[in-house]
Amino acid sequence: MTIITAVDTFDIRFPTSITLDGSDAMNPDPDYSAAYLIVRTDSSDGLEGHGFVFTIGRGTEVQVAALDALRDYLVGEDLDDLLRDMGGISRRLIHDSQLRWLGPEKGIMHMAIGAALNALWDLRAKRAGEPLWLHLSRMSPEELVSLIDFRYLTDALTEDDALEILRRAEPGRAERIERLRAEGYPAYTTTPGWLGYSDEKLERLSREAVADGFGQIKLKVGGDPADDARRLAIARAAVGPDIRIAVDANQRWDVPVAIDRIRELAAFDLAWIEEPTSPDDILGHAAIARAIAPIRVATGEHVQNRIVFKQLLQAGGMGIMQIDAARVGGVAENIANLLLAAKFGVPVCPHAGGVGLCEAVQHLSMFDFVAVSGSMDERMIEYVDHLHEHFATPVHVAGGRYLAPTAPGAGTEMLRASIAEHTWRRSAAAS
Amino acid sequence: MTIITAVDTFDIRFPTSITLDGSDAMNPDPDYSAAYLIVRTDSSDGLEGHGFVFTIGRGTEVQVAALDALRDYLVGEDLDDLLRDMGGISRRLIHDSQLRWLGPEKGIMHMAIGAALNALWDLRAKRAGEPLWLHLSRMSPEELVSLIDFRYLTDALTEDDALEILRRAEPGRAERIERLRAEGYPAYTTTPGWLGYSDEKLERLSREAVADGFGQIKLKVGGDPADDARRLAIARAAVGPDIRIAVDANQRWDVPVAIDRIRELAAFDLAWIEEPTSPDDILGHAAIARAIAPIRVATGEHVQNRIVFKQLLQAGGMGIMQIDAARVGGVAENIANLLLAAKFGVPVCPHAGGVGLCEAVQHLSMFDFVAVSGSMDERMIEYVDHLHEHFATPVHVAGGRYLAPTAPGAGTEMLRASIAEHTWRRSAAAS
Repeated sequence: MTIITAVDTFDIRFPTSITLDGSDAMNPDPDYSAAYLIVRTDSSDGLEGHGFVFTIGRGTEVQVAALDALRDYLVGEDLDDLLRDMGGISRRLIHDSQLRWLGPEKGIMHMAIGAALNALWDLRAKRAGEPLWLHLSRMSPEELVSLIDFRYLTDALTEDDALEILRRAEPGRAERIERLRAEGYPAYTTTPGWLGYSDEKLERLSREAVADGFGQIKLKVGGDPADDARRLAIARAAVGPDIRIAVDANQRWDVPVAIDRIRELAAFDLAWIEEPTSPDDILGHAAIARAIAPIRVATGEHVQNRIVFKQLLQAGGMGIMQIDAARVGGVAENIANLLLAAKFGVPVCPHAGGVGLCEAVQHLSMFDFVAVSGSMDERMIEYVDHLHEHFATPVHVAGGRYLAPTAPGAGTEMLRASIAEHTWRRSAAAS
Repeated sequence: MTIITAVDTFDIRFPTSITLDGSDAMNPDPDYSAAYLIVRTDSSDGLEGHGFVFTIGRGTEVQVAALDALRDYLVGEDLDDLLRDMGGISRRLIHDSQLRWLGPEKGIMHMAIGAALNALWDLRAKRAGEPLWLHLSRMSPEELVSLIDFRYLTDALTEDDALEILRRAEPGRAERIERLRAEGYPAYTTTPGWLGYSDEKLERLSREAVADGFGQIKLKVGGDPADDARRLAIARAAVGPDIRIAVDANQRWDVPVAIDRIRELAAFDLAWIEEPTSPDDILGHAAIARAIAPIRVATGEHVQNRIVFKQLLQAGGMGIMQIDAARVGGVAENIANLLLAAKFGVPVCPHAGGVGLCEAVQHLSMFDFVAVSGSMDERMIEYVDHLHEHFATPVHVAGGRYLAPTAPGAGTEMLRASIAEHTWRRSAAAS
């Protein structure tokens, strides 16, 4: 029997606001951060589970306090019991009635629960000696369905629907695993397009993206309309007509403004428009999608849970689903999101960047390819070349593709030295 | 010049789970709690601003940590500046880009911001020597509109719409203030209907509610269907045909189940069905509302912000708006919600109960009557007779009506002795 002996938490912050990496219309000066946890056990195998919530600076200490609040649910528990029934522990945390009041299923408490569950998934994959994408891809449709919380989904996705989708993909699994190992998974890059970068830096990084083999880049928009148009013109000239350019407004606009602004930018041949308005505005996304078709609306990095994803699909407000590894209630809720996307025939192109989001989310896209959608068509994982050096198993992106991870675990483990060096101390920051 | 010198925070918990007060289908054993703050200044007037987030036990310490995170935004600030432009400080906190990432505009961080803003409103009303409802009711339409954050609302409610609504109600303000002082505001009671109460207690409390002058009671449903029907039959027999009975499922059902269950209970002549499913499921509420008309769907106590309220109205998913004083971003966001309700012609019947919610929300309904909707028709404030004794200016409910508060402030001030006695200490609770 293996017992969880500790849940250690950390407030980790990187001073990215100095270089304006990550700057956009709503987040002018983020300090990329993580509320981080390590699950330790009494096993002689020495394995730990690592998970985190990606944050952007102030308030990370509150996110850490939410991780601390979960300690009592994990420490002292039988690890084998928990890992055998990951659907059970997901439901126990997400539907704890007293914690649920603080969301429900949204915001700081929900993200903390997601991080804790992801740490358990990391530990489970490590114990199995498999990278998470492969570990999930080897589970039976029935076991995968047992992970999912169908509450509030059954008007759009039932257990039978989920089983049918997973069983349909079962025959080709082995072949797709080999294909992933051989070819990797397509990526696109946001590195050139941060709003705080100069025109020269934008142009240079756009050319480099093409040279590096990316078939799509993404630009931040939502500032002054003339600036958006000028920057898009620079990028389009730099990459040529065959490279796709997506734009991302980071929730900057109201619905009528979004429609006007996207129509003004349509001449630049947009791959998609991302987060045109509030992530809570399902009807607004649907109105925008109708008005700007055939340009597709992409969203998801701030979508709070499967219930909002469900409605964005039902309403036709989301042509590209951008799951995030650290926003919702962990791996299991993201599997529900992948199944919803498959049911509605919408491709999933995850949000990444930040701290460790690329490392984490690649596993979900690869699992989607092997066991859910069975397709890489129109699918890409976002790539940003920040902060990978702090992770024990950083992503490998080459030729515009994510190479399939081979190390056991969920990719979420930060280096001990990085944790120590970047643990935030209020007094040090103030001095 | 008056400077804010301190923001003191408290984790306050009452052991209500012992008596099952507040028990429902989703919250079987709440410990009614509050993450509480006091804003102190260097003024010789000795006035303090009090505010809180209502919680139900575990995790309240995380909510307190979120209040603590706001200290740097308030301490050292010029109070007169802040209170002169409450719209400005609302936007500064709600749109702080780094804090916003933790929502956005939802969950623990948004509720903390709401509590801090409500504490400033309490202080502003105390300095004016007026109860908050009267203080708000004396503000000009232009000043009220300056409070509101129209971001993400303009496809449903513009600044001009808001001004028109407020100006239309202006002529009758003085008369309605007098009417409120003379007659109070209608209440309904949830006291009889908690799910954990015995049939005998339900029957006795239902009779008492009628004797006390209430025209409506509310019962919790969402447990076993036979239990729901039996309890409704008992309550209907106890109150007779002329008293309205609302039912509240506390988010227990999926959409198809909700429709079936409500149809089964329709024979008991329901005033409304409250929270039939997830508060995030706008399209689900609309589908339920269409299926069960003319029974109305009521929701709001868990609605995270004005953006979701907007859509519930746009989609026809909410026939009764149940604002909550401590869920959204404070008084100003609730004024936006009241204006949305007025624009769509939906009555507002606030959620109350918990800790101090009756004390706080009565001010918003009374302001709505005086300056927004101009009507009490079909409008009632929820009443539950718990924990009022802990407040400095507890509600006065008599003859089934809330009497208009006369004490200066927002009603949110807890007694010093109650704060001291019920401040939660982990070690004490564990022993």
